[in-house]
Amino acid sequence: MSTYERTLADFRALDRKIRNYHEAQAILAWDLRTGAPRKGMDARSEVLGQLAGEAFKLSTSAEMGELLQALEQKEAQAGLGEIDLKLVHEVRRQYDRSVKIPAKLYEEAVVLISQSESAWEVARGNNDFASFEPFLDKVIGYTNQFIDLWGPKATRYDTLIDDYEPDMSVAELDSIFSSLRDELVPLSSAIADSPNKPSREFLNQLFDKGAQKDFSLFMLGQMGYDFEAGRLDETAHPFATGINLGDVRITTRYLADDVTSALFGTIHEGGHALYEQNVSPELAGTSLCGGTSMGIHESQSRFWENTIGRSRPFWHRYFGDLQSRFPGQLNISPEEFYRSQNTVQPSLIRIEADELTYNLHIIIRYEIEKMIFNEGAKASDLPAIWNDKYREYLGITPPDNAQGVMQDVHWSAGLFGYFPSYSLGNMYAAQMADTMEDQLPEMWELVARGELTPIKSWLTDRVHKYGKLKTPKEIIVGATGKPLDPSYLVKYLRAKYTDIYKL
Amino acid sequence: MSTYERTLADFRALDRKIRNYHEAQAILAWDLRTGAPRKGMDARSEVLGQLAGEAFKLSTSAEMGELLQALEQKEAQAGLGEIDLKLVHEVRRQYDRSVKIPAKLYEEAVVLISQSESAWEVARGNNDFASFEPFLDKVIGYTNQFIDLWGPKATRYDTLIDDYEPDMSVAELDSIFSSLRDELVPLSSAIADSPNKPSREFLNQLFDKGAQKDFSLFMLGQMGYDFEAGRLDETAHPFATGINLGDVRITTRYLADDVTSALFGTIHEGGHALYEQNVSPELAGTSLCGGTSMGIHESQSRFWENTIGRSRPFWHRYFGDLQSRFPGQLNISPEEFYRSQNTVQPSLIRIEADELTYNLHIIIRYEIEKMIFNEGAKASDLPAIWNDKYREYLGITPPDNAQGVMQDVHWSAGLFGYFPSYSLGNMYAAQMADTMEDQLPEMWELVARGELTPIKSWLTDRVHKYGKLKTPKEIIVGATGKPLDPSYLVKYLRAKYTDIYKL
Repeated sequence: MSTYERTLADFRALDRKIRNYHEAQAILAWDLRTGAPRKGMDARSEVLGQLAGEAFKLSTSAEMGELLQALEQKEAQAGLGEIDLKLVHEVRRQYDRSVKIPAKLYEEAVVLISQSESAWEVARGNNDFASFEPFLDKVIGYTNQFIDLWGPKATRYDTLIDDYEPDMSVAELDSIFSSLRDELVPLSSAIADSPNKPSREFLNQLFDKGAQKDFSLFMLGQMGYDFEAGRLDETAHPFATGINLGDVRITTRYLADDVTSALFGTIHEGGHALYEQNVSPELAGTSLCGGTSMGIHESQSRFWENTIGRSRPFWHRYFGDLQSRFPGQLNISPEEFYRSQNTVQPSLIRIEADELTYNLHIIIRYEIEKMIFNEGAKASDLPAIWNDKYREYLGITPPDNAQGVMQDVHWSAGLFGYFPSYSLGNMYAAQMADTMEDQLPEMWELVARGELTPIKSWLTDRVHKYGKLKTPKEIIVGATGKPLDPSYLVKYLRAKYTDIYKL
Repeated sequence: MSTYERTLADFRALDRKIRNYHEAQAILAWDLRTGAPRKGMDARSEVLGQLAGEAFKLSTSAEMGELLQALEQKEAQAGLGEIDLKLVHEVRRQYDRSVKIPAKLYEEAVVLISQSESAWEVARGNNDFASFEPFLDKVIGYTNQFIDLWGPKATRYDTLIDDYEPDMSVAELDSIFSSLRDELVPLSSAIADSPNKPSREFLNQLFDKGAQKDFSLFMLGQMGYDFEAGRLDETAHPFATGINLGDVRITTRYLADDVTSALFGTIHEGGHALYEQNVSPELAGTSLCGGTSMGIHESQSRFWENTIGRSRPFWHRYFGDLQSRFPGQLNISPEEFYRSQNTVQPSLIRIEADELTYNLHIIIRYEIEKMIFNEGAKASDLPAIWNDKYREYLGITPPDNAQGVMQDVHWSAGLFGYFPSYSLGNMYAAQMADTMEDQLPEMWELVARGELTPIKSWLTDRVHKYGKLKTPKEIIVGATGKPLDPSYLVKYLRAKYTDIYKL
């Protein structure tokens, strides 16, 4: 074994060791959300903190710094294969970010965020923004300290964006989101004025949760979700978690009075899970095993949930399967059902929004986050800013802060810069669907026949298998031949809703 | 803070850190058994290995050795409270055992055991002892190396016993088990010859699993199991696991064709769980938080399962609750049902044995383990020895090794010295019940009224709350005023079965 081979082996072992801590954390976190007993949670938080601390220590260790430096020498680089080159690059990216944060500051932030999330939960329950405000200000303060340590990019907010969507910039998002906003606001108004609204009255019934679960499991199977490498559980908020390449779990929530809420939750999380289950096995157990960015991750969940799951061919194919699980309850046509699942209606809550107005919810959050980090807006300013923007973009005013500025957990947890991913996902998905229609000309006939495997394979070949081997930009260009272009999403939404609402 | 206070704080923090790793391992192990996806299991084993390795490293670290030594100085000892004195003592006991095992040998053994368990599972499925034999020989070989490192006690097998039942010896077990065997073999024969056998035919039905689960949950509530500090799940083999003081989980297995298998599994594991849930909160998060020995632990599970759960007053009280969950299926009297749950029948499989012949299964394993470590019996000798002893003690011959020598996982996992705990548990339980009848004269009326709380409290006050503050000997003497005496179990079994079988 040459020196570089020895160094490489040490580097891979250390990377693996860090990943193993993350895997243990992922299981513990999954457990906390799927029914861990209340009285054991405090002790569990301490264990999670310990594991996170060990992983952070190894990630920023002198040993890691030396291994990276050694493998970045010209001679070493010449000897590394593509995967190892990318692995060194990815670990360097994470190392440079983490090593700038003093361990003490990191631990303080972890504690603060844990308190802030609890404070948010209570404050939202009591509709009491004042009690949450000091925590939010502190979280913003820590985030600003992190920006200073990481080093501001073109703008301070760019530094945060970069964590979730590498190489994306505020300048690019400004351009993308402003064109999106300028198209979607009038389209949303036109829809609101249309007399041709889908009927949803027949949905006002109670639907057996067991039958809903059965249909969710059936649909995961149709999508090609591997049940030997995952499981479906029930939680208050649906999520997907990639624990390792052979263990990618999803959760959903069954509502008796909503026949598709759990289903779309399942399909959405199933889309995330297909990404994580189908990363190339060569990357298993390394820091390259996972989605390349939050935006690309969301493209996979939203592609399945909306592009496929809310399409006409999908419901013409699968409505019978749904109907048969609720005998006598859904005596309507597949077409009527399809229309009912595509109602556009400006609303207060992001996670309940339709696929069109959803993007306006995101743009509002993006603009506010920019104001916080680039213009110095404070926690106390946010309720008013929030409500103004909801009036302007969605034409509605939140009746209280619980349904307004406090509705999402993200800010309490310091997840600033994350929201744009959701709309980026929609845009990536629309652009990929456009290319898929060209490359799989029979795509919609396949959906109409319930043959979803070629669709999954298309995504695996162009997105999933690469894990973090490619950047988000490389993925979208590789899959569609072009960089991200928001016009595909606009074109898709315009065509779909012009048809449904007969605009 | 004085020097000793500083040292004590460091010691407690290190002990806590080790416990936190064990807690993470416990969750991961629980997860593996409650539905973790098959394809993720290999990666998970690596994570478990890493966590075990870190805990082992800390447990045997120079730092731990120095802290122990400092706290064992006369001056330090004088300043320590009772809990800290015991904690130092307990950690020293574990340290002395672990530090003698070289890390490399420990890791090899961990890997071997993982392979050996898999080989056992396959071999048992194929009834192919030959394929398991080399693994079993290796496990015995490693165990012998461990005995050499730990240092043999009165006999080599004593060294293994000591790990599960501190201060118990082969000499004492020989005396206990031989008197037990001499009493139980003829009693079992007399029962076999009795014409007055309980009827079990009405049990040959299918019983809804949902209703079984409902009754299991009900009974846990009756026992005083704290559902905010635990949960009930389903696994192939029932178990209880104390993750932390506020998180003590149990599992059971529902069989459609057996109305009480899941119930007794639940009550048994519930007995273990009551122990772990009711350790004094002062001991939370320390190495003293847990059962003092496997034998005392088994006394708690068997007390609830057999002494209470298979008693006449219990079924006179609870049969109606069972009956009402299976309308029209159990049209018999409580007395008939009570008798049906106390059938004695020599059988092949330990875990399915009745409470009388169960002890003979244990004695067989005990005698064989002694032959392995004190007389050099080899894996290849075991099938014949096993079958001979089953003929002699139980009057039946296993038709194959899957139902004979390969039925239990323990030996494949290197758990030699563990089996005696099960019968010790039966004996401790019988002795405690005898004292409880004196101290709670209305004990059986309480059971007949379904008031189980005073019984749980009696056990908490004399057993549970102490955790590892007392040795097994101190627990049994403290609870009953006498050291372990097998005659209580014999007296109990003789009285119970003389009545049922009208001997």
